[in-house]
Order: sequence, then structure tokens, then C-alpha cells
Amino acid sequence: MSEVPEYSKIEFSTKIRIRYAETDQMGFCYYGNYASFFEVARVEALRERGIVYQELEQQGILLPVKKYDITYHLPAKYDELIEIRTKIVVLDGARIEFVYRTFNAANQLLNEAFTQLVFVSADSLKPIPIPTFIKERLN
Amino acid sequence: MSEVPEYSKIEFSTKIRIRYAETDQMGFCYYGNYASFFEVARVEALRERGIVYQELEQQGILLPVKKYDITYHLPAKYDELIEIRTKIVVLDGARIEFVYRTFNAANQLLNEAFTQLVFVSADSLKPIPIPTFIKERLN
Amino acid sequence: MSEVPEYSKIEFSTKIRIRYAETDQMGFCYYGNYASFFEVARVEALRERGIVYQELEQQGILLPVKKYDITYHLPAKYDELIEIRTKIVVLDGARIEFVYRTFNAANQLLNEAFTQLVFVSADSLKPIPIPTFIKERLN
Amino acid sequence: MSEVPEYSKIEFSTKIRIRYAETDQMGFCYYGNYASFFEVARVEALRERGIVYQELEQQGILLPVKKYDITYHLPAKYDELIEIRTKIVVLDGARIEFVYRTFNAANQLLNEAFTQLVFVSADSLKPIPIPTFIKERLN
Repeated sequence: MSEVPEYSKIEFSTKIRIRYAETDQMGFCYYGNYASFFEVARVEALRERGIVYQELEQQGILLPVKKYDITYHLPAKYDELIEIRTKIVVLDGARIEFVYRTFNAANQLLNEAFTQLVFVSADSLKPIPIPTFIKERLN
Repeated sequence: MSEVPEYSKIEFSTKIRIRYAETDQMGFCYYGNYASFFEVARVEALRERGIVYQELEQQGILLPVKKYDITYHLPAKYDELIEIRTKIVVLDGARIEFVYRTFNAANQLLNEAFTQLVFVSADSLKPIPIPTFIKERLN
Repeated sequence: MSEVPEYSKIEFSTKIRIRYAETDQMGFCYYGNYASFFEVARVEALRERGIVYQELEQQGILLPVKKYDITYHLPAKYDELIEIRTKIVVLDGARIEFVYRTFNAANQLLNEAFTQLVFVSADSLKPIPIPTFIKERLN
Repeated sequence: MSEVPEYSKIEFSTKIRIRYAETDQMGFCYYGNYASFFEVARVEALRERGIVYQELEQQGILLPVKKYDITYHLPAKYDELIEIRTKIVVLDGARIEFVYRTFNAANQLLNEAFTQLVFVSADSLKPIPIPTFIKERLN
């Protein structure tokens, strides 16, 4: 019987303030900007566990996004300090999967998202097994 | 027995050239930029059927995105002229749903995406039925 | 003989970490992204003096940019924590002018910039005198 | 007495439609987005003279921006088809300088801008003389 892996018990928190450039004429944060916020959130989550994404790239490992899903409940507004709560839910083969929930300062759930990323070699762009040191730092 | 609605038989085509600003240090178009490309694609699809999104907003109707899913197969590169093939697949209640397939100049499928948008009143931000003239122009 | 105004003696400091979305295929932060960073820097500078830009807009005052100049010395890289040092240099009539110097973590000067902004009425988009409370908080 | 160089007699025209993602809550195109529009304009200007910027990079030549100045007269709005009129004004040593004027569909001047770019080696990031074939195609 499989145990719940350690990494999936941790929820990381990242705060981001909505910039003017990120608003649109509806008066809200543009729906397309969350992809870059989730990138910040997962990079910070990995950094908290001692994994610096920039160093991965310098070692010839890239981590492109394969799937991205988001459901929007409420918009974020200019200058709001949003909080992204991030969890790693799958770490298997060449894949790492994250779920994200975004909250505003009033603790309202703004949206829920999912990304699947794949470890690939920078040279071949082919999938590679998750490096051992990453598994160790996350488990 | 329900017929296949007229709108779902049409595939709209929009071409977009990848800008330098849209590349990232992986050397590809950043994964988060497609959301704005699909916005361009659906606005152009509606325009071809005589629906100008900017005029909708001027009439107090907004069309925010409720769901957005994308699966990436291959990256787009700087200066590539990509083609987005867009279909309206659902037009029901307050909802309009689009599917998109993105191709590069070599006709390789780069990604596949889906968006669900909801017609809302600009005043209340509550869902409203799809305006009749929109249904007429799409059917 | 005019005295040096109080506001021009203060240098505000804002730190921003370069996001992956902000890099380009040259491997650097895209040159066009600094405009949004300087916006963050001046909004934070004003906030430190008790002026919340979002509240200004809610009071019907907009602050569009009239002029923007930048000279680039060195690029910023992905994940670098850059520091923007901001000074208000002119506060006159309807105008507020800022200068910015951007440094990397090694304290190298990356670029130097200037923006002139104009207080305008949201209704008319015409220039209006700088609101008294803003002058008071900056002087 | 020096003659007016050929390249400076040509005005290139590039049309760009303002995307929803490029608007801000003021209801206008965000001031920071023009930098990427001018990049599109100068790349298209060079392409018209047979110079493909992407090929330059593939040959190990980069063209980073050294200076960028812009004065804003009027804002662009969502969905407007703006026209950027571009001129090469200096081609000297390692430098190429462009001026841009942006117009809306009503032929109103929206802004005027200037960029200085420097040819550099991708390896050293040091300035290099303008490649001969570029001079030939522009003169």
C-alpha cells in the first residue's frame, strides 16, 4: 500500500502584487497573466526546498510546461496582493505536476490551476528521468 | 435528434508572428503568451461573423474567460508565423466555448487549447443570456 | 535662491526578481519590460509617502506617462533580484518626474531612466494641478 | 559635403492591432507595450530590405537596444489598428538608430520614439562593426 509522498503534504505560499501593466480595460488582472504568476510560485516553491531552477538550466536541464489548466472564479484587481498556494501533486518518471489556488487579501478563492511539466535535456529536448537530487529534496 | 449547429462547422484561421518580446531564454515562445494569442484568434473569428468585441463592451456586455486549458506539443520560435485554427463548439445559456489548434509554418501541431467564456453584464458582473444578435450571426 | 525640495533628497529602493516570462531568447530580461518595473518602483515610492495610486484613480485622477527615456548599460538575467533606486526630481504644475537607476545584486548599474507623468482628470483627460495632499506628503 | 544617405529617405510602415492583453485599466494601451511594437516595426523594416533579424542571431550577431526614448501624445485604444512609421536615421560604427512615429486610424500622431541599437558579437557581447551586407542592403 502506497504512502502519501512527503512533497504532497506541503503547501507553499507566494505573494504577488498585481502590476498596472497586468490589468486590462475590464479593470482586472488579465486572465493570461496567471501563467507567469504560477511560474513564479513554482520556482519559489522549489527554491524553498533547495532547488534553484536557474541552476537546473545551467546544468542542461529544462522544465517546459506540457499542460496548463485554469478555472477562474473571481478576478484580481490592480495593486491587490494575491497569494498563490502551491502543491506538488505528482513526481513521476519525467513529470512534475503542481496545483495552485490563488486567493486575494480577503481570502477569497480567485482561481484554481494545474500544470504538468516535463524534465527534458536542453540538448535533445527529450524527456529525462527526474534528477535524483530533486527527488531527494522533495521527498 | 439534434442537428450539428452551423457555427461549429466553421474553422477560423488567424496568423500571428511571434515577437521577440514573446520569446524566453529557452529560445521559444513563452508558454503563458498563448492566452493572448487565443484572445486575438477568437476576437478575429467573431469579427468575421460581424461581431466586434469592442462594441459589445461599449454596450455593457463583458466576456470574461471562465476556463482555459492548453496542452503543448511543440514550441513556437521567434519570428515564426503561427496559425491558430479556431472553432466555436458550444453556444449555450450564457456560455461560449472555443477550441484552438496552433500550427507552425511547417504545419506541425504546436498545441491544442480550450476556453469557456461567459457573457456578463458590465454593471453586475452577473451572467446574462447570449444576446440574440450574436446567436443569429453565429448560427 | 531656491532651496532643494525635500522630495528630491529621498531615494526609494524597490527590489524586483526577474521572472522567466520576462526573459527573451538573448537570455536577458527583455528591454521593454523595464517600463513596468519603473511603474512598480514609483508606485511603491509614492506608497512609502502615504500616497496610494489606486486611491488616486478612485478619486478620478489619472497619472499617465508623457515621456520615458532609458539608457541600458548591462542586461539583467533571469532570477536576478534587481534593485531600482527611484527619485522624484520635479513636482511642478501638473507634472511629476522620476529618475531611476537599476542595479543588479553585484551592485552593477544596469540602466538609468526618466519618466515624466502628468496629473489628469479621468473625465476630461486634461491636465490638473497636483493635488495639495500629494504635494504635502512629498514635501 | 555629405549626401543624405539612401536609408534615411525611406519610411517603413507597420500596422499592429492593439490586443486586449495590451490594454490597462485606464482603458488604453499600456505605455510599456510600445517597446515591443517598435521591435516589430524595425524587424519588419529590416525584412523589407532583405535583412532577417533571426538569421543575424543565427550568425552570432545580436542587436540589443542601448537607448530608447518615447514621448506620448495620445493613447491607443483596444482593437485600434495603429500604424508605426519607421526610419533608419543613423548607421555608423556599430550603431543603428531608428525613429518611429505611431498613428491611429484617424491619422492622429500618438507618440514619437527613438531607439539606438548596437551590433554585438553573441560570444563576447562586445560591439562589432555593422556587417557589410547590412550596409549594402540599407544604402
